[in-house]
Amino acid sequence: MEHHVYKKVDIVGTAEESIEAAIAAGVERASATLNHVDWFEVKEIRGAVRGGKVAQYQVVMQVGFRLED
Amino acid sequence: MEHHVYKKVDIVGTAEESIEAAIAAGVERASATLNHVDWFEVKEIRGAVRGGKVAQYQVVMQVGFRLED
Amino acid sequence: MEHHVYKKVDIVGTAEESIEAAIAAGVERASATLNHVDWFEVKEIRGAVRGGKVAQYQVVMQVGFRLED
Amino acid sequence: MEHHVYKKVDIVGTAEESIEAAIAAGVERASATLNHVDWFEVKEIRGAVRGGKVAQYQVVMQVGFRLED
Amino acid sequence: MEHHVYKKVDIVGTAEESIEAAIAAGVERASATLNHVDWFEVKEIRGAVRGGKVAQYQVVMQVGFRLED
Amino acid sequence: MEHHVYKKVDIVGTAEESIEAAIAAGVERASATLNHVDWFEVKEIRGAVRGGKVAQYQVVMQVGFRLED
Amino acid sequence: MEHHVYKKVDIVGTAEESIEAAIAAGVERASATLNHVDWFEVKEIRGAVRGGKVAQYQVVMQVGFRLED
Amino acid sequence: MEHHVYKKVDIVGTAEESIEAAIAAGVERASATLNHVDWFEVKEIRGAVRGGKVAQYQVVMQVGFRLED
Amino acid sequence: MEHHVYKKVDIVGTAEESIEAAIAAGVERASATLNHVDWFEVKEIRGAVRGGKVAQYQVVMQVGFRLED
Amino acid sequence: MEHHVYKKVDIVGTAEESIEAAIAAGVERASATLNHVDWFEVKEIRGAVRGGKVAQYQVVMQVGFRLED
Amino acid sequence: MEHHVYKKVDIVGTAEESIEAAIAAGVERASATLNHVDWFEVKEIRGAVRGGKVAQYQVVMQVGFRLED
Amino acid sequence: MEHHVYKKVDIVGTAEESIEAAIAAGVERASATLNHVDWFEVKEIRGAVRGGKVAQYQVVMQVGFRLED
Repeated sequence: MEHHVYKKVDIVGTAEESIEAAIAAGVERASATLNHVDWFEVKEIRGAVRGGKVAQYQVVMQVGFRLED
Repeated sequence: MEHHVYKKVDIVGTAEESIEAAIAAGVERASATLNHVDWFEVKEIRGAVRGGKVAQYQVVMQVGFRLED
Repeated sequence: MEHHVYKKVDIVGTAEESIEAAIAAGVERASATLNHVDWFEVKEIRGAVRGGKVAQYQVVMQVGFRLED
Repeated sequence: MEHHVYKKVDIVGTAEESIEAAIAAGVERASATLNHVDWFEVKEIRGAVRGGKVAQYQVVMQVGFRLED
Repeated sequence: MEHHVYKKVDIVGTAEESIEAAIAAGVERASATLNHVDWFEVKEIRGAVRGGKVAQYQVVMQVGFRLED
Repeated sequence: MEHHVYKKVDIVGTAEESIEAAIAAGVERASATLNHVDWFEVKEIRGAVRGGKVAQYQVVMQVGFRLED
Repeated sequence: MEHHVYKKVDIVGTAEESIEAAIAAGVERASATLNHVDWFEVKEIRGAVRGGKVAQYQVVMQVGFRLED
Repeated sequence: MEHHVYKKVDIVGTAEESIEAAIAAGVERASATLNHVDWFEVKEIRGAVRGGKVAQYQVVMQVGFRLED
Repeated sequence: MEHHVYKKVDIVGTAEESIEAAIAAGVERASATLNHVDWFEVKEIRGAVRGGKVAQYQVVMQVGFRLED
Repeated sequence: MEHHVYKKVDIVGTAEESIEAAIAAGVERASATLNHVDWFEVKEIRGAVRGGKVAQYQVVMQVGFRLED
Repeated sequence: MEHHVYKKVDIVGTAEESIEAAIAAGVERASATLNHVDWFEVKEIRGAVRGGKVAQYQVVMQVGFRLED
Repeated sequence: MEHHVYKKVDIVGTAEESIEAAIAAGVERASATLNHVDWFEVKEIRGAVRGGKVAQYQVVMQVGFRLED
């Protein structure tokens, strides 16, 4: 078993369609600038309402990635 | 920047299909009697099981709205 | 109103497609060996990332069932 | 399975005799002005002390009720 | 001092009369199938309301017991 | 000692100058439509930033008031 | 309104009969050595099991008292 | 680096003007009877309302001090 | 990526020497009766004191294992 | 409604005068190296005591900013 | 089963070598001035870093002891 | 007393031997790219199990460092 060090960053992904789309938005944006993204942990689910409808899902998550040695 | 006062109420939305449908049910019902509904915060996700299948998603959320001055 | 005793077990369901699919996987697996499964409570939502995409949703939940008298 | 929407309100019931009496006071007062009260969830138990004795139990609880469609 | 290993299970006891009766129901049911039950920890107190009265106390608790070596 | 029943509502007060001003805004607005407001409990302190400066304090609080018998 | 300073101490009261008896035991013991005891806040409810029965309720609480000026 | 042992006590400071004044009241009162008071941690902010205005800020805090060897 | 279902059980490991020894005691005992034990999560660290010395470390943990399909 | 991705960083601002000054110190320092800082969330309020007086307020907060697409 | 009353105090033990040494420092110091110290509960583990190395473990714990009747 | 601004980052250190070794791995790796690392706070302790033995300790911690003015 290898013993690496990991870092976690707090990301808020947003999307109109679903919680999963908001997670994907956050994970993909984080992966654009970070290498070795490995997992995520959802911390909060919230969203915006406009005209009595959900207009945006906002998912606060921690995104974990391996640091290079 | 305007400085309003907001109120949050605790709503439990339910639906058979998905977490998003349960959120929508709660947000739409709250909006039927409250003006200026602006956001929601998910506090708990739970549900009912019947015959080994998920029969209902229940989402406990806070729904926030602006109070008129 | 009947006064039963219930038990809750901690299950982690996983799926590629959605949070709901991960919940269903956990609920169905638990129901395969437990009778009278009645409800679930989501405790954590997390997942694995591979190649900058969500590769797996992992939902930690408590599954509640009635104990026979 | 029917899919209703529920609301929860925060109530503090108080009583001299017991925790159960304080819960009953809160549940009964809430039921006097709300229809379809269905459940309660205790959030805090506290109380007042006078002369080295418990003089009042105070139970903070959420009282849940079904909203009419 | 002996160094044993213990296990905890999540039990929901219910009763009409009191919180203590609901705890007793859960502890006694757990003890019917587990040996060496030693302690309990209350995690949640909730209940059902019918006709403006508390109809059932529901106590979510962890029941701890010693595992045989 | 009198045994009343109290209710708590979730209010978000906002102000530009200080946390205390945001609390005051929430307490005063709640008192405009509720009788017997008696206490508040701060749940969250947050705010908006514009141009590198704090532009608004937002205080989420519970405001407690006595219900008439 | 007077502006005093208060202190809270963590006490564990125990009793065989009920949660209320355990609270009373703790409050009365604390009041034997502290002046101006004014309130308590329950933090945990737990207990010992012997022979499949609850043998002792243990209530962890904070007991608050006014400090003399 | 020296390795001391510290103790923390739970204090509630109160004041009419501000949260900072309530903290100061608690810290100063604690320092009157304790040596080597070194830090504080705010645990809760609450207060009393009279006539629709904040009449008192109450800050629950832990005050930490070094024990003499 | 395979999509399994996992279960977590609450175990209290105890040992005289160290926290790690208490964790090992719990993990090894759980592994004696469960297959595919994969991870643990520490939930609480506590212990017994005798004669002014730590006599036992008690580590409450969740032990996770893969359920067979 | 635009769907951006946001990041939050954990900052500890410190100041002698007030909680607000400590928040300002943290927000301004974060804004010096980050673009599009949009909000903050207070997580902890603590401080240092010297000579029986508050010598420094320390506010742990999350500062949120929009990531460029 | 005897029904005693217990008190818990918040202690921060510190040490250079290990978490266990920091716990021992706190437990032994508390036992020097308190009789009947019976258990401890770890609340926080933190520490100081100097020159890229851990220079001190700091363990915040509650130490419980039996009060004399 | 100087009034600096600090930042905290979330790091997961891992090691085979002990919790302290996992903390050291995280602190040392963070110190390799950050100046003025000053303290750490443990947030979670978990680990991997292989063949019924602890194969890896994983410590999630926040590492705090002073920002240059």
